[in-house]
Amino acid sequence: MFRSILFLGAILLTGLVIGCSATQESDIRKLLQIQQDAWNAGDIETFMQGYLNSDSLRFVGSGGEVRGWQSTLERYHRAYPDREAMGTLSFDLREIRMLGRRHAMIFGAYTLERENDQPTGLFTLIAEYTEDGWRIIHDHTSADPIPEIHQNLE
Amino acid sequence: MFRSILFLGAILLTGLVIGCSATQESDIRKLLQIQQDAWNAGDIETFMQGYLNSDSLRFVGSGGEVRGWQSTLERYHRAYPDREAMGTLSFDLREIRMLGRRHAMIFGAYTLERENDQPTGLFTLIAEYTEDGWRIIHDHTSADPIPEIHQNLE
Repeated sequence: MFRSILFLGAILLTGLVIGCSATQESDIRKLLQIQQDAWNAGDIETFMQGYLNSDSLRFVGSGGEVRGWQSTLERYHRAYPDREAMGTLSFDLREIRMLGRRHAMIFGAYTLERENDQPTGLFTLIAEYTEDGWRIIHDHTSADPIPEIHQNLE
Repeated sequence: MFRSILFLGAILLTGLVIGCSATQESDIRKLLQIQQDAWNAGDIETFMQGYLNSDSLRFVGSGGEVRGWQSTLERYHRAYPDREAMGTLSFDLREIRMLGRRHAMIFGAYTLERENDQPTGLFTLIAEYTEDGWRIIHDHTSADPIPEIHQNLE
């Protein structure tokens, strides 16, 4: 009898954990979908809502390390001053991995379709589950090398 | 009486959590120190012990994404064929952040002192606490752009 209860309990718990993890993964996908849609609407402010609004936020890009939400926003505005520079963003999420219950790693690739070029790159994000939902607390993005044919054209 | 016990319990638990987290951070520092020392002894095999020996390991570098421990080892051998290419490595650990109890994010910068150049870059690592201790399960490393003076010399 005791063993049956233990067994049922274990099944229930496993189901809860799997279900919970699936919900979290789906919430993280939503977060990145909102970011992608905001970017493609030219709305960097809404895009930035995906990041934790904190001085501890870290963005690592080709220009080095940027600390804090405000500085990250300013960097995006500098790097992408208009709709043409922003292009059309698409994410290719290759892995979402839960790290404990309140953190996740997201690994993926991005493509920017622009009139004159198509920059691509890879990103590793750390997201944290906050009272406002999932927020990116760390973003390490690296641009792929520009193909030689493009470099020669410049 | 009950409240006193609860209070004492809370203090004890907090102490344990802080102590535990400090130990983990120190173990992670040791892992990276062993990697740095192995590199500087020209020993890529020992350096590679810091990575989880698994097909799920992911290394993200300027050449793109590499999956698996064996492929990561081969990439290191290709990119750093001899002692001269390996140079002298130093890590500058800027943040170690526990993500739950079994994972951590490590952010830092690296420098390679070599005869003819001094490549630098930034890395984001995810480490997991395994039965063998801490192991890196994800490495996103991006090289800083080469200063123009060096590019012109080439």
